[in-house]
Amino acid sequence: MAQQGSEAATIVIFGASGDLTQRKLLPALHSLNCEGLLDPRTRIIGVARSDLTIDEFRRQLYEGVTRYARLKPGMCALWPRFCESISYLSGAYDDPETYRRLARHLEERTQDQGHVGNVLFYLAVPPLLYPEVVAQIGAAGLNRRDDGWTRIIIEKPFGHDLASARELNRQVHAVFDERQVYRIDHYLGKETVQNILMFRFGNAIFEPLWNRNYVDHVQITMAETIGVGHRGGYFDSAGILRDMLQNHLLQLLALTAMEPPPLMTAKSLRDAKVQVLESLRPLDPAEGVWGQYEGYHSEPKVNPTSNTPTYVALKLHVDNWRWQGVPFYVRTGKALAAKSTEITLGFKQVPLHLFPESTELRPNSISLFIQPNEGIHLSFQAKAPGAGMKAEPVNMVFHFGADALPDAYERLLLDALNGDASLFMRSDEIELAWQVVEPLLGPVSPQPYPVGSEGPAEAEAFITRDSRSWHPMGDVHA
Amino acid sequence: MAQQGSEAATIVIFGASGDLTQRKLLPALHSLNCEGLLDPRTRIIGVARSDLTIDEFRRQLYEGVTRYARLKPGMCALWPRFCESISYLSGAYDDPETYRRLARHLEERTQDQGHVGNVLFYLAVPPLLYPEVVAQIGAAGLNRRDDGWTRIIIEKPFGHDLASARELNRQVHAVFDERQVYRIDHYLGKETVQNILMFRFGNAIFEPLWNRNYVDHVQITMAETIGVGHRGGYFDSAGILRDMLQNHLLQLLALTAMEPPPLMTAKSLRDAKVQVLESLRPLDPAEGVWGQYEGYHSEPKVNPTSNTPTYVALKLHVDNWRWQGVPFYVRTGKALAAKSTEITLGFKQVPLHLFPESTELRPNSISLFIQPNEGIHLSFQAKAPGAGMKAEPVNMVFHFGADALPDAYERLLLDALNGDASLFMRSDEIELAWQVVEPLLGPVSPQPYPVGSEGPAEAEAFITRDSRSWHPMGDVHA
Repeated sequence: MAQQGSEAATIVIFGASGDLTQRKLLPALHSLNCEGLLDPRTRIIGVARSDLTIDEFRRQLYEGVTRYARLKPGMCALWPRFCESISYLSGAYDDPETYRRLARHLEERTQDQGHVGNVLFYLAVPPLLYPEVVAQIGAAGLNRRDDGWTRIIIEKPFGHDLASARELNRQVHAVFDERQVYRIDHYLGKETVQNILMFRFGNAIFEPLWNRNYVDHVQITMAETIGVGHRGGYFDSAGILRDMLQNHLLQLLALTAMEPPPLMTAKSLRDAKVQVLESLRPLDPAEGVWGQYEGYHSEPKVNPTSNTPTYVALKLHVDNWRWQGVPFYVRTGKALAAKSTEITLGFKQVPLHLFPESTELRPNSISLFIQPNEGIHLSFQAKAPGAGMKAEPVNMVFHFGADALPDAYERLLLDALNGDASLFMRSDEIELAWQVVEPLLGPVSPQPYPVGSEGPAEAEAFITRDSRSWHPMGDVHA
Repeated sequence: MAQQGSEAATIVIFGASGDLTQRKLLPALHSLNCEGLLDPRTRIIGVARSDLTIDEFRRQLYEGVTRYARLKPGMCALWPRFCESISYLSGAYDDPETYRRLARHLEERTQDQGHVGNVLFYLAVPPLLYPEVVAQIGAAGLNRRDDGWTRIIIEKPFGHDLASARELNRQVHAVFDERQVYRIDHYLGKETVQNILMFRFGNAIFEPLWNRNYVDHVQITMAETIGVGHRGGYFDSAGILRDMLQNHLLQLLALTAMEPPPLMTAKSLRDAKVQVLESLRPLDPAEGVWGQYEGYHSEPKVNPTSNTPTYVALKLHVDNWRWQGVPFYVRTGKALAAKSTEITLGFKQVPLHLFPESTELRPNSISLFIQPNEGIHLSFQAKAPGAGMKAEPVNMVFHFGADALPDAYERLLLDALNGDASLFMRSDEIELAWQVVEPLLGPVSPQPYPVGSEGPAEAEAFITRDSRSWHPMGDVHA
């Protein structure tokens, strides 16, 4: 995990005329350039089917940078110069000629930039096309070079179940070594996700408490207020498990539960996360709560009789020495009461209740808020002012400054350019995550829940049965 | 520690025409009354040498209530009625006739209030007079009664060294049983001092860290910005050890270091504190740093060649299982840079430094601010926003609301009326505290330090020698 500027490279984006390139990739590269973190020899080649002139392409990117970049052109005057490093190649993804032209163009750009051989491919095409593009890259001999490194970033979703993920890994590994592959989950590029690592391992006082001796249970909530919107077609076939749980949520769980790694390297970190996924007790579909928000059937491109869940709550068990007996309650859904991603460790009750005037001492909790208001809360008991010794729950609060934090794509692109795969998912990690959710991928009968609620009523009963309760959705102290 | 209203009693204040009565005792009793916490049958008898009429006496008290009460007469209209319960008796403290008149007057008031026999004496006279007043109370047979309890509150200072404290205990015990005696240190009545107990024992997550395994050292600072002011005469013969360390500071240390008591009762609490005092390693006078602020010699009533210290820094060792090897650095002084009473636990470094980009990870600390801005800070490492994994020390902060907290005297008077001696000092505790400071009471040669500084330069070297540093004086996040 480097903070220095990037290594020089040519970045080849497949799917260059699409949404992701316009909204995320180029805005991130522009912001990195404005921060002085992008090597000036960087070249960007967009590849897509659309028949665009270079000017049309650049105009499209400029529009994206203007709307979505953290450092907009008004705040950073480097765009005009930067966009000269961008070229465009139109062609069909299944046509070998496209890749031959790409090969020639790559050589030109490499000359132009001073013989830097490094190439970073970015798969921003629909997942269906991954195997084709990867195979064609291989067939054209673009998968490695003598004068520099070659890497490939693959966007999520990586497979739609265990079998397809394994198959995709096989196809990718036929062309690229695992160490060349960067499977991106932008969630891992978020500041506060990385802050979980700093919070746990940059401080001596939390780790002694971070285990079954003191933790009663863990809650992870990823709640969105919006419904499926224009993504109804994709979502209706994917469902909430594939959309949120298999990737983002299990990653948060792994970072929360993992052992301290011996080194802060990609290998150590991913080994530690993999160990958590390996320790997860197989899930029983009957143990989950499934929900679908009212009105989901009327969303565009959604099957009007769809049983696709838009909400899930599960109880997971990490069967290892550290977490035995500590349930991990996780829930994620659309059209809920608050937009909030939060990890809360609920601690056990004090061993001895010393304050007879307080019938109940609320157990301590530590909450890590990932979004939208990134911060950390520690809830504890203070003495209520006045006579007597009455406890009053209060919060110690830390919030990140209001300065715009770097976008996750900035961080991840920089890491990939520098060969740091710490925040990308390894093949075994991906497959393990699919293995965890695999038993839950069959048909379910979701319970309806009102838009703007905290999910189906069953979710409440689900946790109350264990004499626990959900942390209220959203950061009440933001 | 009760929060209910007081038991009915007659309060007899010796030294009723003095400063303490006017500034603290009556304002506290008035505020308690306004809060509905004082039994309406409460009667107050002032005793003093001054020849005042009852009207003059009440006017003097009213003035004090107006200036110093938390609930001023403008905020609470109960004074006119309340002051009718106050009477005044003038007489010499060494004249048995004074006590005979007091006995008669007590009987009248007791009748008047409906035969409540309870009597609370308050010694607000100069310490020199304690033995006389106590003996006279005994001689007049006022030390116990058949129809109610009799208690006595004795103001600090309680003795000026170990021998005098023992002698005073002997004199008091000749008249009162220990369970009748309430030795007051108003510091223990402060909200945040009591909050130390709630913080430690109302929460499950701090106690596991509160020991030699995780704590590197403890710091206790009691700093004042003002000099000795009009107290030069008293202070010059007392010095900083008697003024601050033997009482307030050792109490804070005992509350910080003590084992969890089995019950929140006076006996359990005081046993636990006594165990800490018993565990303190005898002090070596050569180990302290002594200071005297520049200009001290020109203060009114100060001997112009005085060697009385106005500052002391010490390293104490609590030789028990929990704290072995954890130094307690304490310092207290006048005319310093900030008004601040603060307890800081400095934790050990992380066992493994995982973030090569941060040359140093600042160890965690928990600070309890007692005054002037009562609150709790937890200093920890967060990830510095941006690329890389750089640590940045930040603070989780909790501050008590700005509402005026009850005055310490309100709390302590109420507790004494209700027979709760938890926050008062027991005879063995007093003697142990004197025993701790006894080796340091001899003549010293204090180093001069500038007014408004953090003390003599030697204090810096004193802690730097141990590769540690003082927490900056004052609550920088207030």
